[in-house]
Amino acid sequence: MKLSLEEAERIADRLWYRNVDGTVVAVVQDAETKEVLMVAYMNREALIRTLTTGRMHYWSLSRRRIWMKGETSGNVQDLVKAYVDCDGDAVLFLVRQHGVACHEGFKSCFHNEVKSE
Amino acid sequence: MKLSLEEAERIADRLWYRNVDGTVVAVVQDAETKEVLMVAYMNREALIRTLTTGRMHYWSLSRRRIWMKGETSGNVQDLVKAYVDCDGDAVLFLVRQHGVACHEGFKSCFHNEVKSE
Repeated sequence: MKLSLEEAERIADRLWYRNVDGTVVAVVQDAETKEVLMVAYMNREALIRTLTTGRMHYWSLSRRRIWMKGETSGNVQDLVKAYVDCDGDAVLFLVRQHGVACHEGFKSCFHNEVKSE
Repeated sequence: MKLSLEEAERIADRLWYRNVDGTVVAVVQDAETKEVLMVAYMNREALIRTLTTGRMHYWSLSRRRIWMKGETSGNVQDLVKAYVDCDGDAVLFLVRQHGVACHEGFKSCFHNEVKSE
């Protein structure tokens, strides 16, 4: 999915950037399997780049810059669908994941199950 | 799923409460349909109450208090499984949702699709 700059800005203007560094929470779900792959953060610019290019871009809290997922690893994410939540501070993205989402080599960043030991 | 207080505290001690008000991001997914229902925030205490009671509790950023999902609406969420992400600042919860998750009456808070108009 790709939007025009005008459409992307219209969406971006409706959100509530209440999170760290003026971001919304991005939840990323595999469009086919429905597995939740990762959570990241987006400022207005990262959201607009995502919507206009069709490739997932985030705001890195640690590096304090926008990055495209897969820019070094090649594990890019193509945007399939997106949904804004009811209070506008989180966005759910359904993506086609190339390779794996987790930098530790797992498909999903949520690979550590909470269990009794 | 329920853990002992000791087990819950052990999990809670491993997380990175880097978000607003010292919280982690909680992504809530329907355990059966895999639909993403909502995103909320948890401080250490909300996480421990969730893991020890088996009922989802969150930190409300607006009301600045812990609340149990469904405490007024009856739309409680039973914890089925949980996964911590690779950097420990987000937790994915698979739940059994009673009624709907969204206060606007929809099953999921992510009911506003982003589209060209």
